[in-house]
Amino acid sequence: MTGTSQAMTSRPARVKWLAAPSSEAWLQQAMADLDLVLIDHAHCERKAAGVALQLMFRYPSDTALAAALSPLAQEELQHFDRVLALLLQRGIPLRPLAAPPYGAGLSKEIRRQEPDRMLDSFLVAGLIEARSHERMALLAQHAPDRQLRELYGDLLASEARHFGLYWMLCEQRWPRPQLIARLEQLAAVEANLLARLHSEARMHS
Amino acid sequence: MTGTSQAMTSRPARVKWLAAPSSEAWLQQAMADLDLVLIDHAHCERKAAGVALQLMFRYPSDTALAAALSPLAQEELQHFDRVLALLLQRGIPLRPLAAPPYGAGLSKEIRRQEPDRMLDSFLVAGLIEARSHERMALLAQHAPDRQLRELYGDLLASEARHFGLYWMLCEQRWPRPQLIARLEQLAAVEANLLARLHSEARMHS
Repeated sequence: MTGTSQAMTSRPARVKWLAAPSSEAWLQQAMADLDLVLIDHAHCERKAAGVALQLMFRYPSDTALAAALSPLAQEELQHFDRVLALLLQRGIPLRPLAAPPYGAGLSKEIRRQEPDRMLDSFLVAGLIEARSHERMALLAQHAPDRQLRELYGDLLASEARHFGLYWMLCEQRWPRPQLIARLEQLAAVEANLLARLHSEARMHS
Repeated sequence: MTGTSQAMTSRPARVKWLAAPSSEAWLQQAMADLDLVLIDHAHCERKAAGVALQLMFRYPSDTALAAALSPLAQEELQHFDRVLALLLQRGIPLRPLAAPPYGAGLSKEIRRQEPDRMLDSFLVAGLIEARSHERMALLAQHAPDRQLRELYGDLLASEARHFGLYWMLCEQRWPRPQLIARLEQLAAVEANLLARLHSEARMHS
């Protein structure tokens, strides 16, 4: 993995809203079990659609939110379909995976009172999309087979767009300095949750 | 509403898996408040996507289920987008509506033990799609403005297809006589839940 090591050395986070880049250890772990990463990726796309839909149900009268998140949920499900097709083609069965502490750790940061709850929900969802973007870019660069490089290369742009969409929902509702301050806090937590590698390869661990 | 009365008189359920056709009283109530039906329709499309996604999460390893229900959820969300656009165009704000007893009444029939739970979940979801199909056909025929007739005319075919999709998921897993027997029981409950009109117009009431 010399190529990988060189690519990661002293590299700042490429995605500006992330507090720290993914570690070389994560990339090595992912590259060693790309089938597992693919199964986890399917679950992540499905979960991302679930989060968008959950927000639509939680704020049922919010037209701007619904108009933004319904297309996002559809796109996540299209990605799920694409990953599922690749799993089927490769004979890798879909199976439940134990969740790393990442998702629960971020959820814990969401304040319970509105409107903080909405703000934090948008920022956490956006940060997860940002991290997906960063990691898919690494996988698109380093995956050994062309089909996987193409998959991640095709999907990573959407993940960045999804961060932008959650950010836009924030900007429609809060002054930018308040958003930036809270994003910095949550981004620090997010990076910290990734500092300790999960025992098994995951998209977010 | 003479035209309506004639159309409904002694009419058997057009949709063969429904135990009884919608009443004339329902159609009259719906025609008297089409804006409210449109708001409820938006919620119904969103809920239908939610049900499909919920089943995908409940059976996370079931590839055939995921491959069928992910496209269904996407289509429900496309319909939601279309209804939302019409609401916006007409200046009708999206707002939460009190649920009629229909959904909860059907959920109560879903047995708690697997595999009965899966079978009943598929059949109940299918019956709701079948009822939507039947009612959209009535609205496509009787709505006073062309835009609404077109909307319902365009969407009703999908609802029938969605019933077919849930039925296919059942047929992949259970012998047909068992399915038909259980569908008849649930269809009787469904028709019974609609026998008493809700106080306000709803897509399912």
